Amino acid sequence: MKILLIGASGTIGRAIDNELKARHEIIRVGHKSGELRVNITDSVSIRSMFEQAGPFDALISAVGKVHFGALAEMSEAEFAVGLKDKLMGQVNLVLIGREFANDGASFTLTSGVLSDDPIRYGASASMVNGAIDAFVRSAALELPRAMRINSVSPTVIEEALPAYAPYFRGYKAVPAALAALAYAKSTEGAQTGQVYRVW
Amino acid sequence: MKILLIGASGTIGRAIDNELKARHEIIRVGHKSGELRVNITDSVSIRSMFEQAGPFDALISAVGKVHFGALAEMSEAEFAVGLKDKLMGQVNLVLIGREFANDGASFTLTSGVLSDDPIRYGASASMVNGAIDAFVRSAALELPRAMRINSVSPTVIEEALPAYAPYFRGYKAVPAALAALAYAKSTEGAQTGQVYRVW
Repeated sequence: MKILLIGASGTIGRAIDNELKARHEIIRVGHKSGELRVNITDSVSIRSMFEQAGPFDALISAVGKVHFGALAEMSEAEFAVGLKDKLMGQVNLVLIGREFANDGASFTLTSGVLSDDPIRYGASASMVNGAIDAFVRSAALELPRAMRINSVSPTVIEEALPAYAPYFRGYKAVPAALAALAYAKSTEGAQTGQVYRVW
Repeated sequence: MKILLIGASGTIGRAIDNELKARHEIIRVGHKSGELRVNITDSVSIRSMFEQAGPFDALISAVGKVHFGALAEMSEAEFAVGLKDKLMGQVNLVLIGREFANDGASFTLTSGVLSDDPIRYGASASMVNGAIDAFVRSAALELPRAMRINSVSPTVIEEALPAYAPYFRGYKAVPAALAALAYAKSTEGAQTGQVYRVW
């Protein structure tokens, strides 16, 4: 398969790359590195990336920013960051990418545990993750040409604990390589409309 | 309790009004009718509504538009409608309303069954409903002064079947009066961070 891996240089992205590269052609895409570049908050940039990539069999997105912060200090503007980036950035990879995708292509997006198991400072992440999982369940009904779509919802990643541990006390972290298995299952399996929880 | 009922003239709003009016003071709020008016997509309008309403003990929102349509014909713009209206409109009622709310006040938002049990044409509704439910779970951790927040997730409402039946074939509809009980439970009970499913 020809797989577009968006966020290939990230902690999870590198683990996905390691899991899949022996079996597939991986096109590594990033904001500031990679064979192709994309700014997922800009639909023109997304379209240009797909035009350069050409037809593909799978897209995996392991990217997306949200604002982390105290709810007391958050207004509409702070929530807009995650809606534009992690939510609609990833959704636009699907909405625009479907035009370029081969029959039977799969899309795998990244949500996260906070939709179901929230923490302080995570209101925007929770909102966005819940939106992604629900979008995936619904979009699976309507994608054309046997295309599939799933999300992977990881808990905090072991390799990210140096930065995130204080926010996730008591959460059992998972190695990025374990999360990567869920992306492989989504991409190489046959299911659609699923949320793969890696908790 | 002094309860602000946003969307008081809607199918669900009227049923909530009937359920609560014997026990509480209801301030009926609508876009085009009611004692107070509000455009929930406009934070200036929201703030003005709260200034007119004064301090309150509970806010119930039974409003919110999304774009219903075929995914094949939807791009970023169609998804933006629901993100701005049903999602951030309701979230802004909380973000702005918390300044005006009495200690221990409750917020009750409306999501819906499509986050979990999707239909054709419902991709935006699914996304928005999932976002609301996850926001509520998370915001409950951080609201100040013993404030509470829950959502009610109704399935298709019996009284709305004349318009919606073709989209919800096989779904067991519930009367608006049954959905209204969940709003009463959220408002008059003690729980927070809950999603009350009326399915």
